[in-house]
Amino acid sequence: MKSIAVGVDIGGTLTKVGLVDRAGDLYGNLDFRTTDFPKFDDYLDELQNKIEFLKGQLRSNFSIVGIGIGAPNANYYRGTIEHAANLKWKNIVPFVEKFRKRFDLPIYITNDANAAAIGENIYGNAHDMKDFMVITLGTGLGSGIVSNGKLIYGYDAQAGELGHVLIKEGGRQCGTGRRGCLEAYVSSTGIKRTVFYLLSDSMADSELRNYSFRDLHGEIITKAAENGDVIAQEAFRMTGEILGKWLANFVAFSHPEAVFLLGGLAKSGKWIFEPTEKYLDQYLLPYYKNKVKLLPSGMMDKNAAILGGAALVWDHM
Amino acid sequence: MKSIAVGVDIGGTLTKVGLVDRAGDLYGNLDFRTTDFPKFDDYLDELQNKIEFLKGQLRSNFSIVGIGIGAPNANYYRGTIEHAANLKWKNIVPFVEKFRKRFDLPIYITNDANAAAIGENIYGNAHDMKDFMVITLGTGLGSGIVSNGKLIYGYDAQAGELGHVLIKEGGRQCGTGRRGCLEAYVSSTGIKRTVFYLLSDSMADSELRNYSFRDLHGEIITKAAENGDVIAQEAFRMTGEILGKWLANFVAFSHPEAVFLLGGLAKSGKWIFEPTEKYLDQYLLPYYKNKVKLLPSGMMDKNAAILGGAALVWDHM
Repeated sequence: MKSIAVGVDIGGTLTKVGLVDRAGDLYGNLDFRTTDFPKFDDYLDELQNKIEFLKGQLRSNFSIVGIGIGAPNANYYRGTIEHAANLKWKNIVPFVEKFRKRFDLPIYITNDANAAAIGENIYGNAHDMKDFMVITLGTGLGSGIVSNGKLIYGYDAQAGELGHVLIKEGGRQCGTGRRGCLEAYVSSTGIKRTVFYLLSDSMADSELRNYSFRDLHGEIITKAAENGDVIAQEAFRMTGEILGKWLANFVAFSHPEAVFLLGGLAKSGKWIFEPTEKYLDQYLLPYYKNKVKLLPSGMMDKNAAILGGAALVWDHM
Repeated sequence: MKSIAVGVDIGGTLTKVGLVDRAGDLYGNLDFRTTDFPKFDDYLDELQNKIEFLKGQLRSNFSIVGIGIGAPNANYYRGTIEHAANLKWKNIVPFVEKFRKRFDLPIYITNDANAAAIGENIYGNAHDMKDFMVITLGTGLGSGIVSNGKLIYGYDAQAGELGHVLIKEGGRQCGTGRRGCLEAYVSSTGIKRTVFYLLSDSMADSELRNYSFRDLHGEIITKAAENGDVIAQEAFRMTGEILGKWLANFVAFSHPEAVFLLGGLAKSGKWIFEPTEKYLDQYLLPYYKNKVKLLPSGMMDKNAAILGGAALVWDHM
C-alpha cells in the first residue's frame, strides 16, 4: 500500500485540493471556488465530494493516511478557523471537529504560512534545517518560523504574524485597521502601493501610469522593471530595503539558518532578492554575517499550497 | 545523596558562584572579581578553587551533578565565550573544553539572558509555561525566548538578541557601534540616557540635575520618580512606551504566554511596569489582547544569576 496525504489550501477565492505522496508527487488535484459556498456546511459537502472524487481516481493499492489544511486565521491547537476577514464564514468555525465526522482520518489545520514552512522542510529547500523561516509574499505577508526543528505556534497558535509587525507609526493602513504594518509595504499589494506612491511623488515617465490600481499586479511591475522602467525598479528597491532591514531584526529573534521567500512577489526573482539581500547584509549585526542565507523557497515552482497542507500530515507521522 | 548543581555567573566585574539544589535552595555562595584575572587560565584556577571551597563546606551526603554557567557572548553549542566586549579574554575562549579537564562533570554555558529564561522555568514564575520570554534590563537588554518548551538558540546559538533590534534609524549609539538599537533606550543605561536627554531638552526643575552621568543610576531615578520629579517620571514613561511598543512586535513573532521583566530597571516596579503595560496593550494586535501577560520575574528577589546557571544543569537532567 502506498500512503497518500490529502493537501488542501483554503483561499479567499479558490480552494485547492490534491493528493500527494511523501516524496511530493501529486496524484490528482483540482480547484473550486470557496466563494460559491457562503454556508460552511455546504462548503464541507463540496470539499468532501472533491476529496472522494480524487480518491476514486486512485488505484486500489493507495491508502489515504490523513488530511492537512492550510487556511487563513486557522488555529492549529483548536482545529478552527477564527474571524477570517477573507472568508465568508464568520466567527469561529470548528473545522476539524466537523470534518472528522466525514472522514475517519487524522485532520490537521494551520495557517497557510505555517503550512508553507512545514512544506519547505518536507518538500522544499529546508530538508536538513532545524532553524529557518518562510516568508510568504502574496496579498499580505505571512510567516512560518521553525526553531529547534519545530514550528513556533506560541501560546494560542498565533505566533508568526510578522506581516503585522509595526514598522512605521502612522504609516500605511493595513487590513487589520492598524496603520504601519509591515505587510502594507512588503507584499504583492505593498509593492503596488509603493508604485502608486512613486507615481504620485515623481514626474518620471513610466509605463505603469497606464494601469488602474485594480489592474496593476506583480507580473506587470516585474516586466516594467525588466524594461528599464525607473518607477518599477525604484519600487523593488524600496520594498527590498524594508524587507532586508526587517529581516535583520527578525534574525536577532530566532537566528535562522535561512530565510526563504515564497509567493507572488518572490517570483520576481532578482528584482526582489537583490535589494533584500543588500539591505539585509547592511543591517545585520556583525556576528550574524555569513550565518544567515536568503533563499528562494523550494516550493516556488511546485504546487506550494497543496504541498503545504499535505506536509502537515507527514509532519505528524 | 542530595543532588546539587553549581551555578556560575560571569559578569564583566564580578563572578558569582553558588551551590543550588533542584528546589532553588542555596548551599553556599561567593563572589570574586572577574577583572583580577586577565589571563583565562588563571581565571579558571580561581573558579576551580572557589567551587572546590564551596564543595568542601557541603555535608558528605551531597553530590555535585553538574556546572552551569551564564556568561556574556557565550555560545551554548560550542561551549565557548566569543568576542565578549565586557571581558578581558579576547577572541574565542574554549570554556567548556578547558573546564572539563578540571571537573569530570557535565558543564554547560550559555549567555546570561538565556540562563535567566531557563531559571524562570525551573525556579521562577514560568513553571508550567511552554511559551514565554524573559527580558533582562540591566546595563543592556538581554532576552531569552522559550517556544514549544525549549529555549530558542537558533542556527549558531545567537538567537534572542532583542537588545540589538534596530528601533530608530540613526538613533542612539550602542555598544556594538551601531545606532538605534533597542537597548540604547530600554535598559538601566538607556533610561539614564533618556534622563540626560530630558535634562537637555526641558527647563523643568529636577533633583536629577545634581548627578553626573557616571553617578546617576536606576535607584536614584526611581526615588526621584517617587518624590514626584517630573523628569524621572517622564523618563520612565518614555522607556515604558518604547518597551511596550516593541514587546507588541515581539509577541507577533513567538506569541508568548507571558513576558517576564528582570534586572535593575525591572526592580523599579510600577514605574516601569505601568507604562510598559499601557503601551503594550495599546499596540498589541486585537487577537493577542488578554492573551499575553506582562509579569515581574520570579527570580527578581532571588540570586537570579546563580540560579540561572544552576538551572542549565537541571534543564539537562
